[in-house]
Amino acid sequence: MTTERDKMTAGQNYDQFDPELQAQRTKMRKALGALNQIYDNREFNKQLKPLLAESGDHLFVENGIAFDYGFNIHVGNDFYANYHLTLLDTCPITIGDNCYFGPDCGLYTPVHPIDPVQRKNDVELGAPITIGDNVWLGGHVTILPGVTLGNNVVVGAGSVVTKSFGDNVVIVGNPAHVIKTVD
Amino acid sequence: MTTERDKMTAGQNYDQFDPELQAQRTKMRKALGALNQIYDNREFNKQLKPLLAESGDHLFVENGIAFDYGFNIHVGNDFYANYHLTLLDTCPITIGDNCYFGPDCGLYTPVHPIDPVQRKNDVELGAPITIGDNVWLGGHVTILPGVTLGNNVVVGAGSVVTKSFGDNVVIVGNPAHVIKTVD
Amino acid sequence: MTTERDKMTAGQNYDQFDPELQAQRTKMRKALGALNQIYDNREFNKQLKPLLAESGDHLFVENGIAFDYGFNIHVGNDFYANYHLTLLDTCPITIGDNCYFGPDCGLYTPVHPIDPVQRKNDVELGAPITIGDNVWLGGHVTILPGVTLGNNVVVGAGSVVTKSFGDNVVIVGNPAHVIKTVD
Repeated sequence: MTTERDKMTAGQNYDQFDPELQAQRTKMRKALGALNQIYDNREFNKQLKPLLAESGDHLFVENGIAFDYGFNIHVGNDFYANYHLTLLDTCPITIGDNCYFGPDCGLYTPVHPIDPVQRKNDVELGAPITIGDNVWLGGHVTILPGVTLGNNVVVGAGSVVTKSFGDNVVIVGNPAHVIKTVD
Repeated sequence: MTTERDKMTAGQNYDQFDPELQAQRTKMRKALGALNQIYDNREFNKQLKPLLAESGDHLFVENGIAFDYGFNIHVGNDFYANYHLTLLDTCPITIGDNCYFGPDCGLYTPVHPIDPVQRKNDVELGAPITIGDNVWLGGHVTILPGVTLGNNVVVGAGSVVTKSFGDNVVIVGNPAHVIKTVD
Repeated sequence: MTTERDKMTAGQNYDQFDPELQAQRTKMRKALGALNQIYDNREFNKQLKPLLAESGDHLFVENGIAFDYGFNIHVGNDFYANYHLTLLDTCPITIGDNCYFGPDCGLYTPVHPIDPVQRKNDVELGAPITIGDNVWLGGHVTILPGVTLGNNVVVGAGSVVTKSFGDNVVIVGNPAHVIKTVD
């Protein structure tokens, strides 16, 4: 049987008022509230780890993280994220090994319809975000639904990433575009 | 008699050290501090409601909201705002019905003079922000003083909205510009 | 003898796992955690002051400030910063007199290598940020490592400042560019 959670994770229209999804959002708001009042970093990351679907060795996130569900967040080894990371995880957010994120980054998987009538009727869609290995996001970076970044990508601070890019590029701007390749 | 609050709300030069305005800012800092330590969403929105000038049915704001005064914030029915909304409300911020705001949006009504001598002398101005019905702001959106957005406008994540736009458009970029119309 | 702190402050490759630096980061996380739970602004700024290397008369910062060390932050007289200022201060951040910063600004001095192998090997560099007198940053502004802004500069909300600018200019956009001069 397909659950609303399954549909949401697959990017299909789902019922956001589904009791299971509502309960998980309520649980996570409280868990994040408690988590973000911990200023001992070791303890913070120890308590963050079980809230995520997967995370590797050396998870190191600074205070101020926010997300919707946690069960769609998959993080590799040696992940460092600076203050105030926001992950809207209605669809899977998958981050490879050895990634560094600057402060105030936002990765958003939810998609609302452009049509106002559909939006009003709570049609809720989404698309996954996939980040390769050895990716560095500068601070204040925004990643849109459906974006895939390859390995060794560097994203300049303040960039808005609206489409996918392959391996070994430095991208900057709004919308982000390639300014150099990484040898 | 015209008060400093009246002048400020009208966008005229006002005395930011006026005791009534200072008292309100002090009161709101404490109220927001207490509010943002509530992680039960129902309770959070129940306590947010009386801090705003007006809000309609189904006010649903996530944790991390910040504003100056509250008395210049007018929100319609069915408003949803994700984490960490910042509303600088020296002038009125008016939001229509059925609007959705992504995380980390900032709507700023204050204007400081470009001239450094006037700025040093605490000349404080402003201009209202008006958002129509059925507007969706993506995450990390910035709205500048004096902007009006019509009905059914969609603003792409990471956009900086520097001027007004009419109904039924999708705008993106820095500065935001129309990329399509909504049928 | 050159310490890791000296090397870091000079923008040279340093050992981020140096015990002195780790201890300072740990100390500051806890200090900032306690600070950001103070919603009385007078008390907040009184407790912020000793965490910074230097600050002048009339320090007035709103809640939500974050930084790495504090010992590389130098602020002049009459500084006002709105909510949620982020200062990554591996290298010196020097701010002149009479500056106003809008909400959600980020000034970032750390530089990671573009080469993923070097990044993986924890090569950590940086470059100072210097802001002149009478500078106004709008909200959501990002300042990159190595940037110097002259006196009387105005930076439009949502701008990303990737290079230095002299006195008396208004800059906007991503990347920020001059749109007018200040008489």
